[in-house]
Amino acid sequence: MKLCSFTKDGVSSYGLVNDSGIVDLGKRLDAPTLRDFLASGDMAAAEKLVSADADYAFDDVKHDPVIPNPDKIICVGLNYHAHIEETGREETPNPVLFARYQGSQIGHNEPLIKPLESDMFDYEGEVAVIIGKEGRRISEEDAMDYVAGYACYNDGSVRDWQKHTHQFMPGKTFAGTGGFGPWMTTADEIADHTKMRLQTRLNGETVQDTTLDMLVCSIPRLIAYCSTILPLLPGDVIVSGTPGGVGARRNPPLFMKDGDVCEVEVSGVGILSNPVKAEA
Amino acid sequence: MKLCSFTKDGVSSYGLVNDSGIVDLGKRLDAPTLRDFLASGDMAAAEKLVSADADYAFDDVKHDPVIPNPDKIICVGLNYHAHIEETGREETPNPVLFARYQGSQIGHNEPLIKPLESDMFDYEGEVAVIIGKEGRRISEEDAMDYVAGYACYNDGSVRDWQKHTHQFMPGKTFAGTGGFGPWMTTADEIADHTKMRLQTRLNGETVQDTTLDMLVCSIPRLIAYCSTILPLLPGDVIVSGTPGGVGARRNPPLFMKDGDVCEVEVSGVGILSNPVKAEA
Repeated sequence: MKLCSFTKDGVSSYGLVNDSGIVDLGKRLDAPTLRDFLASGDMAAAEKLVSADADYAFDDVKHDPVIPNPDKIICVGLNYHAHIEETGREETPNPVLFARYQGSQIGHNEPLIKPLESDMFDYEGEVAVIIGKEGRRISEEDAMDYVAGYACYNDGSVRDWQKHTHQFMPGKTFAGTGGFGPWMTTADEIADHTKMRLQTRLNGETVQDTTLDMLVCSIPRLIAYCSTILPLLPGDVIVSGTPGGVGARRNPPLFMKDGDVCEVEVSGVGILSNPVKAEA
Repeated sequence: MKLCSFTKDGVSSYGLVNDSGIVDLGKRLDAPTLRDFLASGDMAAAEKLVSADADYAFDDVKHDPVIPNPDKIICVGLNYHAHIEETGREETPNPVLFARYQGSQIGHNEPLIKPLESDMFDYEGEVAVIIGKEGRRISEEDAMDYVAGYACYNDGSVRDWQKHTHQFMPGKTFAGTGGFGPWMTTADEIADHTKMRLQTRLNGETVQDTTLDMLVCSIPRLIAYCSTILPLLPGDVIVSGTPGGVGARRNPPLFMKDGDVCEVEVSGVGILSNPVKAEA
């Protein structure tokens, strides 16, 4: 099942995506948001509507971030060997974690914003893991039971601000830099998440390409580690890290500029596409 | 005016604190939370009730974090010269920012939780700045107009987890480690915020003592920098950094343990007191 968040005629809602378009769940179910729907645990209520006639064509809404209002967005840095190598950093036994604030996110087809303050706006294609139920100190063995689904994420990074100090966050949470979409595919549709292929394309050219078995800290390991720190909640998002090929480490560097189009594709999930808009 | 968040008989609310106790604003005003009340901009609605008879004695409620549900908690590291020196790090021209998630916060008199996973649980007394209105790219000149008030913060730090990698966040957002209280004092009561004195006491002994004019990045500078990244919203919290004297840098180290009591006092604001409880 594919679940998305959207705004139609100024009203925020969420729905399921099928061949006919978007079935508006927000107007059919009690839960007001996709996060609340995940928390309800009543996936069956949506499954009954999988073949319903769509309320809207898929392109006839404004797409919001898959989870517009997560309690936590936990970003993972340096989690693929090839990306660690290109940055010249050392591998660490524990995951490198930093945060992004929800106000920095955008949905499918909405513009990624290159801020006024920087010409070093870089893509980072990633797989977002969306948590389905609350848990603390979840074991790696049980971790996959807590995954509601997966989405494509573009962890757009303002490289000079990321390097203002040793802490990455300022460059990782500019307004309009976190692409999250086009929907989440529920975990039941992904037979083996480690076989998911992640690709990033800038203006049609493939710039990142990996499979999820290349992660340094696996998805179960990330869930176990993060949930040791504090409870994970339904709708929490773990953005699992970017592979090699980022623009800042190319020679010459390849940064995103006004008019570019950046796509993140995850096999079995879909394609997140965003135009790039420079602030004037 | 002193404004606090609390739970009474299982119901979350907020109120103003006067000599008679807490006047419950949640049941008198439309805004359901203190964050919403700040967003309403209608401070006068509370001011009318400053001399009202209290609904509850101050100690007869469970104190919640001053803002239990902020959109953003932005923590500032290494923002006092004496603390930079004791850590052996270099001063940076830009603020060192990382995040804490709202689920890690606790209110006045609630226990700070030393997690199972660590014996290196450290205090960090700080001044929390609470934002009163939305703004982006706020100038340093205008910044103080965006401050709703101030509170005491104990940015309880799990030092070994903070140092798992170069990114601080894991050690800075364990459940039950962020003390935030006992209330916020509105900005109109603080004639010169740079003269505020910040002290931390562990079991009655003063372990940190500074004035806010010793900040490396001033409050206006922090507001200008953070709001360049993304909009600040009413109820956002900037935790402005800890002075010298943290436990990890003492010889021998001084960590918090079960049964300790840690207090953070900010002159003109009040005293945040929390017992320390070790997870069994």
